[in-house]
Amino acid sequence: MARTIDLNSDLGESFGPWQMGDDAAMLSLVTSANIACGAHASDPETMFKTLTLARERGVVAGAHPGFADREGFGRRLIPHSLGEVERLVATQIGALMGAAALVGTTVRFVKTHGALGNWAAADPDVAAAVARAVKAVSPDLAMLSISGTALDRAGHDAGLASYSEIFADRGYLSNGQLVPRSKPGAMIHDPEEAASRLVAFLETGLMPVVDGAPIRLEARSICVHGDSAGAVVMARHVRQRLAEAGIGVAPFLDAAS
Amino acid sequence: MARTIDLNSDLGESFGPWQMGDDAAMLSLVTSANIACGAHASDPETMFKTLTLARERGVVAGAHPGFADREGFGRRLIPHSLGEVERLVATQIGALMGAAALVGTTVRFVKTHGALGNWAAADPDVAAAVARAVKAVSPDLAMLSISGTALDRAGHDAGLASYSEIFADRGYLSNGQLVPRSKPGAMIHDPEEAASRLVAFLETGLMPVVDGAPIRLEARSICVHGDSAGAVVMARHVRQRLAEAGIGVAPFLDAAS
Amino acid sequence: MARTIDLNSDLGESFGPWQMGDDAAMLSLVTSANIACGAHASDPETMFKTLTLARERGVVAGAHPGFADREGFGRRLIPHSLGEVERLVATQIGALMGAAALVGTTVRFVKTHGALGNWAAADPDVAAAVARAVKAVSPDLAMLSISGTALDRAGHDAGLASYSEIFADRGYLSNGQLVPRSKPGAMIHDPEEAASRLVAFLETGLMPVVDGAPIRLEARSICVHGDSAGAVVMARHVRQRLAEAGIGVAPFLDAAS
Amino acid sequence: MARTIDLNSDLGESFGPWQMGDDAAMLSLVTSANIACGAHASDPETMFKTLTLARERGVVAGAHPGFADREGFGRRLIPHSLGEVERLVATQIGALMGAAALVGTTVRFVKTHGALGNWAAADPDVAAAVARAVKAVSPDLAMLSISGTALDRAGHDAGLASYSEIFADRGYLSNGQLVPRSKPGAMIHDPEEAASRLVAFLETGLMPVVDGAPIRLEARSICVHGDSAGAVVMARHVRQRLAEAGIGVAPFLDAAS
Repeated sequence: MARTIDLNSDLGESFGPWQMGDDAAMLSLVTSANIACGAHASDPETMFKTLTLARERGVVAGAHPGFADREGFGRRLIPHSLGEVERLVATQIGALMGAAALVGTTVRFVKTHGALGNWAAADPDVAAAVARAVKAVSPDLAMLSISGTALDRAGHDAGLASYSEIFADRGYLSNGQLVPRSKPGAMIHDPEEAASRLVAFLETGLMPVVDGAPIRLEARSICVHGDSAGAVVMARHVRQRLAEAGIGVAPFLDAAS
Repeated sequence: MARTIDLNSDLGESFGPWQMGDDAAMLSLVTSANIACGAHASDPETMFKTLTLARERGVVAGAHPGFADREGFGRRLIPHSLGEVERLVATQIGALMGAAALVGTTVRFVKTHGALGNWAAADPDVAAAVARAVKAVSPDLAMLSISGTALDRAGHDAGLASYSEIFADRGYLSNGQLVPRSKPGAMIHDPEEAASRLVAFLETGLMPVVDGAPIRLEARSICVHGDSAGAVVMARHVRQRLAEAGIGVAPFLDAAS
Repeated sequence: MARTIDLNSDLGESFGPWQMGDDAAMLSLVTSANIACGAHASDPETMFKTLTLARERGVVAGAHPGFADREGFGRRLIPHSLGEVERLVATQIGALMGAAALVGTTVRFVKTHGALGNWAAADPDVAAAVARAVKAVSPDLAMLSISGTALDRAGHDAGLASYSEIFADRGYLSNGQLVPRSKPGAMIHDPEEAASRLVAFLETGLMPVVDGAPIRLEARSICVHGDSAGAVVMARHVRQRLAEAGIGVAPFLDAAS
Repeated sequence: MARTIDLNSDLGESFGPWQMGDDAAMLSLVTSANIACGAHASDPETMFKTLTLARERGVVAGAHPGFADREGFGRRLIPHSLGEVERLVATQIGALMGAAALVGTTVRFVKTHGALGNWAAADPDVAAAVARAVKAVSPDLAMLSISGTALDRAGHDAGLASYSEIFADRGYLSNGQLVPRSKPGAMIHDPEEAASRLVAFLETGLMPVVDGAPIRLEARSICVHGDSAGAVVMARHVRQRLAEAGIGVAPFLDAAS
């Protein structure tokens, strides 16, 4: 197992006068930032501020495209053709790149958001559309996806550098999928429980599951959600426990290409 | 005088189910397209379609950023800080570049739209903010601006290739400014009158004005508005009369860089 | 059979600078107008203009609520809870009523739009949510629904005046449902064919179907779509043929309550 | 002087997933709520939740219309014709009334928001347009305006019940206007200072000013802003000090009409 791991979080999800989460605190704790691109959240000002702060803290910037659905925060599955998915993803990455150019930084990777992410994780055609869009915008962009999903495979198949993540606060099933939110064990709210599980996983490569023996998972990054109330506490605790276990925290990519 | 001239038009201004103008017809007549970027008009699908058609017709693609104001079509002056202008412009160019990457084409220049364009034409600080944003996104981008405006100067001052345009359908004053829309002679609705005036200008470098002797203007492009009812008729007539006068129609930039 | 019939159309679907259909022409042909409420289409200006023109022409005004999805024109099924459906419908009717108050006219009925309409037609719980919202806003509001749908029943069950419509340009199946758009016979593009069918229906109460003997349908209104290119031609022809057959065209409600 | 006073606050300014302020806490402290109507902030869900909570707490509900400008939170002056102001105001009140009908409560008054409010306070024509819209929607609606403004006068002139407010946290000039935000004394951040000043005003009818002797002002309500961080602390302190001074807190209107 790698003795370093990346911490990523969904950030830059404020909009106009409305704040979401505590980006300044999270950007002191994570090493990669999935930054909203103005569709499910964000706007040009928020993109610029988030990229500026990420650059100052040495956090690697990624694009976090989602459905153009602010009311639903990109969590509602809205029918799209595969071509529409491509255009949605490409234009959002482009918008963030425009802001990054002003900041003097670089967008290094793409991670899909919410309902678009879930759809791409499950449907190989949607996953391929996402990967095509990413590659068209730049073959130098990496992809960050949930370990073992269609999107993870599509990234590799497209010849993109594709990295996998696990969740700090979600329980796993023995088939490698997440415990559905409606089931017991879906959410891990206790920072210590989450941290212990992650340390054990990083030391052994085996992830505890709710329905059997631990399973082998690949992961180059741990996702700590940025928009939940306990996100900062969770991220801080995970980071501290990783340090105590001698596991370094480092981005899966360099900040500058 | 140049024996060729560019024809440009504001295109790609449809939105969702709503059409604006006749882009397919205009893209057979013009040589440069100012393409809306999803803020005052357009969306990812419209950007993609317009860029695709422009590429097929060999029309050079430019970004046409404006205020994020669909209800007002970008024609209302909305207060922005200079920094906000930079972010607005950079993210819109970026979004169009994302769509262009999918199409396999390149965004070559930037022309500002509506109230943002008028503001940048008149205010050197706003003009400089626009030019900074354009240059940050790519120093290879050219700018297209109204001859003699603050924006035109700002483009040159920023070291960008900066081209000037005149209007096919607007009257001029002896100070080089447009006749205000509220005054007689502001609009030229008759295609033959517009075409004659343009041919005379291109042959002599002198533009007739409503209040004195013709003045000397620089222009590498003629703007024929894309969203007015008579746009196609006007563009077609101008093009034909230019041909009869032995003046070629050619883009001010190459389609591919 | 009634010797008069209502003609209704979806109108007021422009948005900002973008026009949809030819409302002025349609409002000279129909007797009831389903007017968009600012969510899938329209804005305060468009609501006001459409209501003003409807009042001048003596056309009965109805609200036409849909999903808040301009890009998709309300035609994409977006996940909503039943409570969300209630709030969506009530606030849209209210917005149109606000505009109607300025015009000095009255919103008399409600017809749901697009994907919301299809969902409410098929799902009794959604239909009941729509009817609850309509009744809460005003028990004097009528409902206009496709003959035989869950929404039609929900209107009656809620104690609302509930009227049914048939489509001028859609084929029917022997079970009373529309021929799916992907099947032969789904669309009737020829105005004469549509008109003949409607006259025959109004004289006999029997509707021809693509898969068997004509069926008995109830209808107090005929829907001629407002946003298709041939809408005006279709409506004009239907109206003329009804007149020739001695069938009057009159609203299913009075314009003023 | 009245021995009771109303406390009002701008509430219901969340949007989709984004929270603004602490409405639940404020609705336990104020007696009138200016509720956003879906344009500068809010959406159908937020309107419904805010109205529901207001009804439970016996807080009188008012509409708080503003420019349709979420990015700018309605604080940017966007050009509108007088007719557009009317339509903006009428449709927003209507939307809130639709939500109120679902809740089983009544919208009792209107207070304009942000840049629209400032414009209507200063410009008699805009003020008259607002008053016309309010009266058209319902002559039973009251208006709440800053004491001594054009909007206050326009409400009276239109024959509407028109109530005036003062600000808990803003300094006054001897001409009755607010100290501009850029000047010393504009903001009163200390709850005790604000409360003392209000108690003194309510006991004497005289308001301290930064540039001379106290002036006579009329006020039936005190505005405590809902979106600032210290809003709850300020409102709580003002309420307590009013109680200690024997001044009751009561709405300027009955909750139900």
